[in-house]
Amino acid sequence: MDNINIKYLARELNLSISTVSKALRDSYEISSGTKKKVFALAKKLNYQPNPNASGLREQKTKTIAVVIPEVSNNFFALAINGIEKAAQEKNYHVLIYLTHENHEREVSYFRTLSNGRVDGVLLSMSSEGVDHQHLVDFNKKEIPLVFFDRVCTSLKNIKVTTDDFDSSLLATRHLIDSGCKKIAYLMISKNISIGQIRMQGYIEALSSPTEVRQKPLIVECSNNYEENYKIIKDLILNEKPDGVFASVENLAIVFYNVCRELALTIPRDIKIISFSNLHTASLLNPSLTTITQPAFLIGETAANMLFKKICKKADDEVSETIILKSTMIKGDSTG
Amino acid sequence: MDNINIKYLARELNLSISTVSKALRDSYEISSGTKKKVFALAKKLNYQPNPNASGLREQKTKTIAVVIPEVSNNFFALAINGIEKAAQEKNYHVLIYLTHENHEREVSYFRTLSNGRVDGVLLSMSSEGVDHQHLVDFNKKEIPLVFFDRVCTSLKNIKVTTDDFDSSLLATRHLIDSGCKKIAYLMISKNISIGQIRMQGYIEALSSPTEVRQKPLIVECSNNYEENYKIIKDLILNEKPDGVFASVENLAIVFYNVCRELALTIPRDIKIISFSNLHTASLLNPSLTTITQPAFLIGETAANMLFKKICKKADDEVSETIILKSTMIKGDSTG
Repeated sequence: MDNINIKYLARELNLSISTVSKALRDSYEISSGTKKKVFALAKKLNYQPNPNASGLREQKTKTIAVVIPEVSNNFFALAINGIEKAAQEKNYHVLIYLTHENHEREVSYFRTLSNGRVDGVLLSMSSEGVDHQHLVDFNKKEIPLVFFDRVCTSLKNIKVTTDDFDSSLLATRHLIDSGCKKIAYLMISKNISIGQIRMQGYIEALSSPTEVRQKPLIVECSNNYEENYKIIKDLILNEKPDGVFASVENLAIVFYNVCRELALTIPRDIKIISFSNLHTASLLNPSLTTITQPAFLIGETAANMLFKKICKKADDEVSETIILKSTMIKGDSTG
Repeated sequence: MDNINIKYLARELNLSISTVSKALRDSYEISSGTKKKVFALAKKLNYQPNPNASGLREQKTKTIAVVIPEVSNNFFALAINGIEKAAQEKNYHVLIYLTHENHEREVSYFRTLSNGRVDGVLLSMSSEGVDHQHLVDFNKKEIPLVFFDRVCTSLKNIKVTTDDFDSSLLATRHLIDSGCKKIAYLMISKNISIGQIRMQGYIEALSSPTEVRQKPLIVECSNNYEENYKIIKDLILNEKPDGVFASVENLAIVFYNVCRELALTIPRDIKIISFSNLHTASLLNPSLTTITQPAFLIGETAANMLFKKICKKADDEVSETIILKSTMIKGDSTG
């Protein structure tokens, strides 16, 4: 049957239109008995609310947006699963927008999202561009926005990250303890907050007076496999590092392939540790030593914070940063 | 400046409201010069159409939905990238919905999507449930729907897949040629179209009169890592196969871990080939022989077919199936 509307449901149930409308919105004003009757008939008749009309009236879309750089990365894939878990508990739909590290696309998405298409947004920023005006503008719209992983430090929104500095300090010290005398740091972009913080942890470890001091060797890569291959190959040939700390897993994979071409044996000739949620890390040849982020939990926590904001349960004045610890998982790639 | 509307733009540009409205919708009725002027001012003033109001009027959302089981799988991650490429060319937004293999969620998403939230839908079906009534209902709404990878064979919609049967025949024959006398086939669910077709290719290879006939050993797994670990371990201990053909990469990863626990050496004790888009396949210990699907191209092609349907350029009466070939990439896991 087509064109089942609230009026029809109300007539069938001998209830007022307002009561049916409130029941469908799960209003506390309506008894659970009445709600059950309304839901049952709505389901039976396959009632579909008009999304545009109901959007105008209710101002709730029961949808959140997740804006991330990419999905071909295990961190984001796992974080999405965590977000989905939280959303499912709240009966929310999740829409995923990919920026592919492109700042213009991020700006364009936020322009669309500012129209009230969703009740809230989770963002992990793209690596391009340092201009955050689109987020400043978005915050004025009073649609809740929560950052995770790649955050904008200059904005007051809630942020959920891992202990990037401490983990990087630990990772670099692990390479030093494994005997590395010349450690390179591979990062995607200096514009990414976490790339910066991880770099600081690396620099701190190298400059620690209790260690043999090393000069930082910071290598900025890109999001392109071929470009990164060339950059890392040139690094190995020209600088001859004996240890590498990769800030993201894709760079570690490139590194393995370059070592294979150059017939370098890991860990004998060169060692590597990487931030990674790669589920094949332990199966690689050799197994990869990783700093593994609690990706699922980061996603779930960020989503739960967003729902608190949507339900006005979070204090608007509090600029909260939640830090969830990463874990070092020792493989054979560091000896 | 807030509340910039079409009326305001029209007054500023000395154009009719109807002209501005059509220009913003990129109507062919408006000259490109006028469109440029309208777009320039709209951008300058940060004009935002009211999504609900304009949705009611224009019936174009410039958005497509992609409904897939998961993103923590390289096939889908790459397919999404292909879909995004096609969408970007058409200036469309892509919304990603994950079913997590749950039939109820798929049904629920289609209920939402049938409200006109998007202009078209790309679907790779969840493994649960054999009831396709939600898709039959959705097709009545005349919102274009295109299948990719996991299709519904009983519906007439356009389908984009790979040559699952031929690839599976090839994979199984490769194991036979490598000396395997007892080959097991691992699948996620008998409800998935491609799982079924791949199984037929496997059975065909085993029953081919030119080969030593083998009895099929079909093992149905699940979407849960721990469950699959137990199923595959039991298989190896009880049935002692000397070759395994995994229909999805996640099962190959479980297999590697089980072999490690049981101290079985791949390929000496047991061989494996798997459908996979794992970008670490060549770096595994040992490197994995794969049937690799053109995942990016499958996504891109499915999206382009959908856009044809949206623009009414595709013939509604034609039930087209596009088959894009997979490639076997030889690793050390098959000897």
